[in-house]
Amino acid sequence: MKYSERIEDIAKRVNEALNRFLPTAEGPQKRLFEAMRYSAMAGGKRVRPMLVLEFCRMCGGKEEQALPFACAVEMIHTYSLIHDDLPCMDDDDFRRGRPSCHVQYDEATALLAGDALLSLAFETGLCNNMQSGVLAQNALRAMGLLAKASGGQGMVGGQMIDLLSEGQHIPLELLETMHRGKTGAMIRAAAAGGCILAGADETRVQAADAYAAKLGLAFQIVDDILDVTGNSQTLGKPAGSDVGNRKSTYVTHLGLEEARRLAGRLSQEAVDCLRVFGEERAFLSDFTLRLLNRDH
Amino acid sequence: MKYSERIEDIAKRVNEALNRFLPTAEGPQKRLFEAMRYSAMAGGKRVRPMLVLEFCRMCGGKEEQALPFACAVEMIHTYSLIHDDLPCMDDDDFRRGRPSCHVQYDEATALLAGDALLSLAFETGLCNNMQSGVLAQNALRAMGLLAKASGGQGMVGGQMIDLLSEGQHIPLELLETMHRGKTGAMIRAAAAGGCILAGADETRVQAADAYAAKLGLAFQIVDDILDVTGNSQTLGKPAGSDVGNRKSTYVTHLGLEEARRLAGRLSQEAVDCLRVFGEERAFLSDFTLRLLNRDH
Repeated sequence: MKYSERIEDIAKRVNEALNRFLPTAEGPQKRLFEAMRYSAMAGGKRVRPMLVLEFCRMCGGKEEQALPFACAVEMIHTYSLIHDDLPCMDDDDFRRGRPSCHVQYDEATALLAGDALLSLAFETGLCNNMQSGVLAQNALRAMGLLAKASGGQGMVGGQMIDLLSEGQHIPLELLETMHRGKTGAMIRAAAAGGCILAGADETRVQAADAYAAKLGLAFQIVDDILDVTGNSQTLGKPAGSDVGNRKSTYVTHLGLEEARRLAGRLSQEAVDCLRVFGEERAFLSDFTLRLLNRDH
Repeated sequence: MKYSERIEDIAKRVNEALNRFLPTAEGPQKRLFEAMRYSAMAGGKRVRPMLVLEFCRMCGGKEEQALPFACAVEMIHTYSLIHDDLPCMDDDDFRRGRPSCHVQYDEATALLAGDALLSLAFETGLCNNMQSGVLAQNALRAMGLLAKASGGQGMVGGQMIDLLSEGQHIPLELLETMHRGKTGAMIRAAAAGGCILAGADETRVQAADAYAAKLGLAFQIVDDILDVTGNSQTLGKPAGSDVGNRKSTYVTHLGLEEARRLAGRLSQEAVDCLRVFGEERAFLSDFTLRLLNRDH
């Protein structure tokens, strides 16, 4: 199967599973379920669930062992976008080319839809392991990792730092801490979680984690470069949303050339981390280098 | 130990554990951690964690087996209050006699503090079982129950129904569905979760669930009665906050006398459900009947 077909194929299976795990839009709280579906099924590249599934597969696991966790990761990503778009946060009226959740519905519904997606993520990841033969202790560990990655020491913590440093110049170290929280933590949990659910040994879990940490950083740097040189397309935000801000980026800190060099080095190091997965790593290596060389 | 001393003693141990599980207010996202602590340590009766601990104890479990779960339940309760108070929801400036979280901090910080508390609840309940000897499958089941209870089919679903029926007369059946979601689901998860973590048999888990369903309903009815006859003090909202609304309650549906009769019957049925727990049930029976006869 060609690279692009394979990417599409994975996204299709993730979408099918999400559709299965999301509540059907009926009953007295129908509006809530509609809003959850509106945002969760709005497309998106499904990069995080793809990482879950690929790491599970590379460790010899079956896809059904990782699908609930993959959907949990995507639900958390979706909830973070809904809350990020709210008027008290980024106040974005559009998301993925459509009205954002609070514009399509209303603020209260969007707030609750985000809240419900976060709970549903944990329900999905916790309540669907028996059938697929995942060991309880592995499910517990992967979900614990996800809980930590999504919270105040991870994603939400990164959002808070972002909020506090709005429009300000911040030191490179804090910029990195912010990105490690905001996007890095969930990507790392996705990669490590996929391995854990497949019952992988500690060496592979650590390699996946190291890979994902480098991938997340490289992606962010490339994004900062594209913000200056052309189209940007972050893992979460709409293209170009940061243009015009006086905010710190890798480019303002390092300059274009040095930023490019750093992104290239991190991508190569990320690919190197995949060695322990043997021949099966070809697809993910390809994916990693394509991310570096993307032009949007 | 006297009843009131015992209630205070449990609340004290819950507060100590919460203090341990909450992040210390330091680092670049300090403001977030402060806001989480501000709301989580604001007092409150700690009814839900008390139920977790009591059911665990009545099933022969040790307190440390249930404390992380008890704190998880309370963190979710706290997050729901923070988000409930936001301007786009109930727009309440006060909570437990102090400025609500978004007044003390700001809307964005309050939103993120709620989000982070929900994730921290799962982290706390998922990552602290090995030391206390809880079986992985039991932790997984209890946390799965909590995830479901807190989401769109439970607490958040109830909040959505509440939002949609604001200021309207709604049928008794929908009123019950709303309360079963809004407060009942979490109380049931607390009671059943305490049993599950202690490794109780299915009979006890079901009895705890049935007890809690009746307790939740009885409490709500008494609350509706007190809203008319005197002071109210719900399990979540400040006293008297609903007075003056044209909204449906058990009293508008049933009248005072019939509502009193129903609350009495439900409390007695709740107490009856506790029989399977033998002599150990004395404290919780006492608690249940006191709730019925409270005057605020």
